[in-house]
Amino acid sequence: MSTNVKAFGTEAADADLQPMHIDRRDVTPQDVEIEILYCGVCHSDLHTARNDWGGSKYPSVPGHEIVGRVTKVGSEVTKFKAGDLAAVGCMVDSCKTCDNCKQDLEQFCLNGFTGTYNGKDKHSGGHTFGGYSEKVVVDQHFVLKVPENLDLAAVAPILCAGITTWSPLRHWKVKEGSKVAVVGLGGLGHMALKLAHALGAEVTLFSRSAGKTEEAKSLGADEVIISTDHIQMDSVRGKFDLIIDTVPYVHDLNPYVQTLHTSGTLVLVGFLGNLEPMLNTAPLVLGRKSIAGSLIGGIAETQELLDFCGQHNIVSEIELIKMQDINQAYERMLKSDVRYRFVIDMQSLKN
Amino acid sequence: MSTNVKAFGTEAADADLQPMHIDRRDVTPQDVEIEILYCGVCHSDLHTARNDWGGSKYPSVPGHEIVGRVTKVGSEVTKFKAGDLAAVGCMVDSCKTCDNCKQDLEQFCLNGFTGTYNGKDKHSGGHTFGGYSEKVVVDQHFVLKVPENLDLAAVAPILCAGITTWSPLRHWKVKEGSKVAVVGLGGLGHMALKLAHALGAEVTLFSRSAGKTEEAKSLGADEVIISTDHIQMDSVRGKFDLIIDTVPYVHDLNPYVQTLHTSGTLVLVGFLGNLEPMLNTAPLVLGRKSIAGSLIGGIAETQELLDFCGQHNIVSEIELIKMQDINQAYERMLKSDVRYRFVIDMQSLKN
Repeated sequence: MSTNVKAFGTEAADADLQPMHIDRRDVTPQDVEIEILYCGVCHSDLHTARNDWGGSKYPSVPGHEIVGRVTKVGSEVTKFKAGDLAAVGCMVDSCKTCDNCKQDLEQFCLNGFTGTYNGKDKHSGGHTFGGYSEKVVVDQHFVLKVPENLDLAAVAPILCAGITTWSPLRHWKVKEGSKVAVVGLGGLGHMALKLAHALGAEVTLFSRSAGKTEEAKSLGADEVIISTDHIQMDSVRGKFDLIIDTVPYVHDLNPYVQTLHTSGTLVLVGFLGNLEPMLNTAPLVLGRKSIAGSLIGGIAETQELLDFCGQHNIVSEIELIKMQDINQAYERMLKSDVRYRFVIDMQSLKN
Repeated sequence: MSTNVKAFGTEAADADLQPMHIDRRDVTPQDVEIEILYCGVCHSDLHTARNDWGGSKYPSVPGHEIVGRVTKVGSEVTKFKAGDLAAVGCMVDSCKTCDNCKQDLEQFCLNGFTGTYNGKDKHSGGHTFGGYSEKVVVDQHFVLKVPENLDLAAVAPILCAGITTWSPLRHWKVKEGSKVAVVGLGGLGHMALKLAHALGAEVTLFSRSAGKTEEAKSLGADEVIISTDHIQMDSVRGKFDLIIDTVPYVHDLNPYVQTLHTSGTLVLVGFLGNLEPMLNTAPLVLGRKSIAGSLIGGIAETQELLDFCGQHNIVSEIELIKMQDINQAYERMLKSDVRYRFVIDMQSLKN
């Protein structure tokens, strides 16, 4: 049994997104049904809709930064009741039994987690549909609680952009006085600044353009270093315990490695591909430095982040758009013309 | 004031090593004078003697795996007395005041540690001379205690080959049940097998040749994986918490990254240079994996290792040679024809 709901998606890689209808399953005993109020717009949405990475399934309904209100719960659901605020991020299922799942690392489920969209849906046998829709039905384990005191629209990007930067901050134990740098000031980068600052770190933004200094400082940066300026780069040589590199395209890591302190780590959260130009290992060996990667975060960690954001009054900087503006928003994202995340007011889908 | 002592070294990059005399300073209040009994032969010795890395100073007297007996101590020396066994590794001095030195990380001294040979000698104003000599005079902070129960000749390689593999095992918290792999079975690799095994890890050797299996198992490996065999490599996909890569020349890291478990680290201890072929970051991001480097170890850590070796009866596998055989030994090292470390019986220098 299922319910047919309004959604927005695309039937092909080269087609615009447009209104469509999809089925949402009736709640099983472990399920939570959520009326979606806001959905953030992630670069992955665009890349999946357009099949930039291959493997996209159609119709494609993107969206994995979901905030809404519970409308129905299954008979065994204990975490939520109708009327509660709720959120869903990048995952809606995992095996729950592997070593990683048992350690709250569902993002590294050894049997593969189920993406909120374009994933293999264990219930329908087809693929999953994301948050550009009226409703979503999700296993309670993958549903997050949302603090009541935050701007709900601006909470949405925490579910992907936020957790993607929070997880490495926590895994590499950033604390009061840690020296953290962030490469790139976009959806992820601006959350990294806010979160690192709230953890008590001394925060630096690496930027290629000088025009972002005031903006970055208002977001939590203590200083901005122009990465193309050798004198500025030399001034932070050996400084950082952790660098969170949010840049989504290939770029030279070597100048950033020089700015790591002994035993420091540069963690990539945006770029998947071959490192070019070649990485020189000498600074790694001579300073016990690391190049690492990190992927979103586990469910418990995401809840920890939402709670932290509630306590510290942290939300994303957003531009609220209507569902019907999504194609134009994608074009603007491709030009990095967004401060700093688009969020869809899902009320517009009803119109 | 100083003492003229016999040594073995070279006057030029293209000359063989030969007998010579060098000066050793008289002990200052903090100094320990050591009669050298054994000195291990590290690849760095050869590269420095031949100026392979540039920057070699002549005359060059290599040797930084030194075991001997204390003959004299300065007025303020409390750690040693004449007659004690003593050892010296790769460092004879550091600033002692920087943040790293204060944290027992002299190998990362922010002002640069003084190498046991080819370093800038703060006392003489010239450069340091290593262990291919009758005696050495070293600040007590950089002199290690040697367990009485071990074969002294076979202790020598612990001072460089041993600590170089011990330090990453400890930094990345290898313990009972950890899954550790070692790439390369030479001076460093064979120590890595012994030490990881003694820490209770499940130990795998990656080798390019099948002929080393029995030997590796006798040294502490639980299994040997032929790195050129895709089926064998697939069988350890996602397995290791830590890979210690001892290979000293450029090689493809990508196949090894695939064998790391979630959050695992591949640590380079032998190769300084550009990574080629290019490192693919996707497995790093999708599995929170790291590529790191590590350099020898601190003095306290080296003492910890020597004590551990005493408790577990661990020494290096060596071929004992005479000082006069060093040029021939270098030629054999270049062909990897040594099991697993040459150690010079310094008694031969007196003849």
